[in-house]
Amino acid sequence: MFKAKVRPEVLKEVVDIVSTLVDEAKITTSKTGISIKAVDPAHVAMIELTLGKGGFEEFKADDVALGVDIDKIKEVLRLAKPGDMISLEHDEDSNRLIFKVGNITRRMSLVDTSGMSEPKVPNLNLPVKVIVKTDEIRQGIRASESVSDHIALLANKEGFEMISDGDTDSVNLKLGKDLLEELKCKEDTRSLFPLDYFSNIFKAIGTASVVTMHMGSDYPVKLEFSVAHEKGEVTYLLAPRIESE
Amino acid sequence: MFKAKVRPEVLKEVVDIVSTLVDEAKITTSKTGISIKAVDPAHVAMIELTLGKGGFEEFKADDVALGVDIDKIKEVLRLAKPGDMISLEHDEDSNRLIFKVGNITRRMSLVDTSGMSEPKVPNLNLPVKVIVKTDEIRQGIRASESVSDHIALLANKEGFEMISDGDTDSVNLKLGKDLLEELKCKEDTRSLFPLDYFSNIFKAIGTASVVTMHMGSDYPVKLEFSVAHEKGEVTYLLAPRIESE
Amino acid sequence: MFKAKVRPEVLKEVVDIVSTLVDEAKITTSKTGISIKAVDPAHVAMIELTLGKGGFEEFKADDVALGVDIDKIKEVLRLAKPGDMISLEHDEDSNRLIFKVGNITRRMSLVDTSGMSEPKVPNLNLPVKVIVKTDEIRQGIRASESVSDHIALLANKEGFEMISDGDTDSVNLKLGKDLLEELKCKEDTRSLFPLDYFSNIFKAIGTASVVTMHMGSDYPVKLEFSVAHEKGEVTYLLAPRIESE
Repeated sequence: MFKAKVRPEVLKEVVDIVSTLVDEAKITTSKTGISIKAVDPAHVAMIELTLGKGGFEEFKADDVALGVDIDKIKEVLRLAKPGDMISLEHDEDSNRLIFKVGNITRRMSLVDTSGMSEPKVPNLNLPVKVIVKTDEIRQGIRASESVSDHIALLANKEGFEMISDGDTDSVNLKLGKDLLEELKCKEDTRSLFPLDYFSNIFKAIGTASVVTMHMGSDYPVKLEFSVAHEKGEVTYLLAPRIESE
Repeated sequence: MFKAKVRPEVLKEVVDIVSTLVDEAKITTSKTGISIKAVDPAHVAMIELTLGKGGFEEFKADDVALGVDIDKIKEVLRLAKPGDMISLEHDEDSNRLIFKVGNITRRMSLVDTSGMSEPKVPNLNLPVKVIVKTDEIRQGIRASESVSDHIALLANKEGFEMISDGDTDSVNLKLGKDLLEELKCKEDTRSLFPLDYFSNIFKAIGTASVVTMHMGSDYPVKLEFSVAHEKGEVTYLLAPRIESE
Repeated sequence: MFKAKVRPEVLKEVVDIVSTLVDEAKITTSKTGISIKAVDPAHVAMIELTLGKGGFEEFKADDVALGVDIDKIKEVLRLAKPGDMISLEHDEDSNRLIFKVGNITRRMSLVDTSGMSEPKVPNLNLPVKVIVKTDEIRQGIRASESVSDHIALLANKEGFEMISDGDTDSVNLKLGKDLLEELKCKEDTRSLFPLDYFSNIFKAIGTASVVTMHMGSDYPVKLEFSVAHEKGEVTYLLAPRIESE
């Protein structure tokens, strides 16, 4: 059983994040809320998102797995006007998810979840922790996009740096200790990442004004940020690229 | 003779509606105002639009038929700034329509009207009359567009319904009696229509906040709505599709 | 040596104007400011732009020639948020131009200037001088674009006129003496110009609300207008087209 009412802006945050990696996703519901795990087809990044029942206006569920087409939920979101509420209900007989917005009802067929890979978030020991303003990183991404397809993330005791090295030009964003929300760094680290993944997830972040980054040298970066004004949490793991010297 | 001055927003309403069906149209003028009849090339829909001289700031005409290229009038409309007035005059010697906006004069060649079909609006006996809010229908159209190419319009004593049935998903907009401006319905009716025509005309409706719909079962739907804040009237007739069972 | 700080909106005005003719440009700096001369590949138009040091927030330079890729500067401009300042510095060792916006540094490789043609602005004796509002001309251009690829500029003792003659339609913008800021005209003049060049430069004009036009019959038109609220000046010369009778 799953029946809920949610503000469109909350559902939008969830959908925006998940759609950076997959077109279809399995939503797992429980008494306490929903969770979504997803990995992109190339297995470069994975997401683990949880949204507690406090993120919903109404929420009643037991353990159900719902396979959804993300684009269809985006279509429903486009129907919502300011102040509208979206209600969702799982119709077990027809195995459809029923959305209601205003006077409109959309019956959505569910997607088979049996083929969906359930990623296991690996237990990584990442020595560096940096908390940065989302907007600073977004600005750095914007500056890098015309210069290279990759970005290097660096940390040392003095601060955090994001470097994009192109054939002729280079861009770097330097955030000293005083410009960071937090910095825990005992060793210098540097890893290279594909810019498109990094860019897509930062563009998808909604209400979270800060992001926690856990880093190592030539290790994945683990991003943590909230959704729906702290009512939900996202962990995003991105694999590094090998730097060619 | 035809000489008039009109607010751009009024001319825009007229042009937006007519351009849903045709690229070129015959404007018929008379002492009391203008009228345009048009049918689309596929003969699926027809429009009858009248705009009384009260819809113009200045108006002086006798019986003239002016063949116009709708896109060219749209170009003139794009020149108008807020508060601007557009003046039109038929130059009989050169057979051109002369538009003036601000300090700009555009001399527009007219289109031959002899080949334009003059549709005859059939006299239909449609048993159901529903008056609905334009915005409600627009919302229903938006919800339907991703689901199917057709919509069914239904009415019964309880209210009005718009249904879009796709292969996997379905959308319906249900407006009970209390959500309608008016409902006259003695028998249940249902007809199927092409969504694109229905969508285009509703997107083109300008100042009319309500639309009157006359319906029957497997019959055309007749829409009536005002233009230019009640200074003009439109009748729009859309042929049904045959429902395949 | 070249080191400066500039408001993004000032740099944008310069870049918008220069990019109407070239992708790469040579910026010549001196103690008193910067200047750019450019001619388009087809040698139809040329620009001479000067921006005094008063147009910068900080400025220190001696005689340097910097070859820049205009699109890259546009990328830097897109990083600036309201109130941001852009600092530029020529790094002589690496021969790069270093831009700083917020916490971002972009090192930009310079372009070889040896192949760039340095246009000589010819000394023309143009008998007519008209000062017009930029917006009026822009409106006339907008009206002309759908009608023809050319515009004729005319002046006589009564005023200024811009005419676009198409196969079926024609557009003219007529500005009588009273609608002009200034008119010096002892003889009737008329020249034809390519609309795209004329349109591009007028769309690129930023803060200048008026433009001075020097005209002759079948002669180039010389436009003069300010940039950066009178802190800089542009001279734009556009070659005429031969009118076919």
